[in-house]
Amino acid sequence: MLELGSETLIVTHDMMAQGTHFRARADMADVAWKLVAVNLSDLAAKGAEPLGVLLGYSLGEGDARFVKGLGEALAAFNVPLLGGDTVRAAGARSFGLTAIGRATHIPVPDRRMARPGETVWVTRTLGRAMLGFEGQQEHALAFNRPMPLLAEGKALAPHVGAMMDVSDGLLLDCWRMASASGVTLALDSMAVPVADPARRAECLRWGDDYELLFTLPAGIASLVPAAPIGSVLPRGNCTMILDDVNVASPDGLGYRH
Amino acid sequence: MLELGSETLIVTHDMMAQGTHFRARADMADVAWKLVAVNLSDLAAKGAEPLGVLLGYSLGEGDARFVKGLGEALAAFNVPLLGGDTVRAAGARSFGLTAIGRATHIPVPDRRMARPGETVWVTRTLGRAMLGFEGQQEHALAFNRPMPLLAEGKALAPHVGAMMDVSDGLLLDCWRMASASGVTLALDSMAVPVADPARRAECLRWGDDYELLFTLPAGIASLVPAAPIGSVLPRGNCTMILDDVNVASPDGLGYRH
Repeated sequence: MLELGSETLIVTHDMMAQGTHFRARADMADVAWKLVAVNLSDLAAKGAEPLGVLLGYSLGEGDARFVKGLGEALAAFNVPLLGGDTVRAAGARSFGLTAIGRATHIPVPDRRMARPGETVWVTRTLGRAMLGFEGQQEHALAFNRPMPLLAEGKALAPHVGAMMDVSDGLLLDCWRMASASGVTLALDSMAVPVADPARRAECLRWGDDYELLFTLPAGIASLVPAAPIGSVLPRGNCTMILDDVNVASPDGLGYRH
Repeated sequence: MLELGSETLIVTHDMMAQGTHFRARADMADVAWKLVAVNLSDLAAKGAEPLGVLLGYSLGEGDARFVKGLGEALAAFNVPLLGGDTVRAAGARSFGLTAIGRATHIPVPDRRMARPGETVWVTRTLGRAMLGFEGQQEHALAFNRPMPLLAEGKALAPHVGAMMDVSDGLLLDCWRMASASGVTLALDSMAVPVADPARRAECLRWGDDYELLFTLPAGIASLVPAAPIGSVLPRGNCTMILDDVNVASPDGLGYRH
């Protein structure tokens, strides 16, 4: 975050590495799209409007596909490429993207602002990226071409307590919000919309969904499609309560890298 | 370049890759310093004041040294780290840095603005990084810990025609300025201050010096230490004239990657 005159800039830099974030045989057009989308998702969680991106690119196979997917993403989200650099390096490739946005609401939403009495919400449906990754065609786009919730983040920014995007698994990111805010989050796992109810536990832990997780004062309905999934309590003797059971540690709640 | 309210942002993203930009046995503290310095040098050439940087870091050997050098550079140039990401990827490592600055003068200096009748200038001495790379102790810092000419760039910005930083060799960057401006640059190689006059040709072609190359109206002296090294002519039948000889192509003028 960077204050400049009357504006507040939100800046983010997320990387994707072969092997960790994408498979060697991935379509590089999808990799490029996702690199843009995950960074814009960070801006969405701050209620920020994207102003532009800069790319750090490691040359290799599929360069033309990468450029195609990059162009598609930039066009889809109406964001200019402001600069970047390319290198050639042997071994696993990694790409970095910096996204710059302007805050649309001050104070800028933050994961540290959950307050007791608020309700915890999450947008849309969890687990779609997992099913797409596993090969279910109807969910392929959820994994390959996630959509950052820019309009939703902007609409929510003036109203939320805390807000963040869900990238590493809903439960892990709930834990992080609770830790950062110094509160306890009590969650009702059955209230979370999941793509496959028979695999609810996995849907709550798999990452890559890029939903928005946020809190609102109790009794206030969300302005954007979302489900209430729990409540914020004063900090008790644990960070999270899941279906009335104290969760002792973040181990096993999501994807950590 | 990004206009935001009354401010103009300058953004740059330069990468360094093992094997291309640094040796495997390099001190990672120096690599970190240089990564910051080369990006700030881009801002210097635009007359911009740095506001912050974001880092894309590939984990590996020497992480603690990298963090140390990064901290030293950020402290030396008084620039905050605004964000970043780390990945672990097998093979040659590469690092990316985004630097964000604010323009101090509009129009922002640009390599495309050299105009016939102007004089070509370059700051300080060329070839120091080359000698440092080769092991000459007195020039080690020039290679390992280059200093971006931020104050000089800011002082020059209101006065220059064209300006850019010299990163890939003086002659090659002169060629680029001439091409971008649609003019011919006539250079006097003996007028260029070099670190080793016996190796003048190499000093004019080796990169990594991070000097500022700029043009001023004829008869105007530079406000910062610099040498006049040639003049801008209307575009003739070649892009560059070196010591009265037409240069036919940029091949062999510098370091291209």
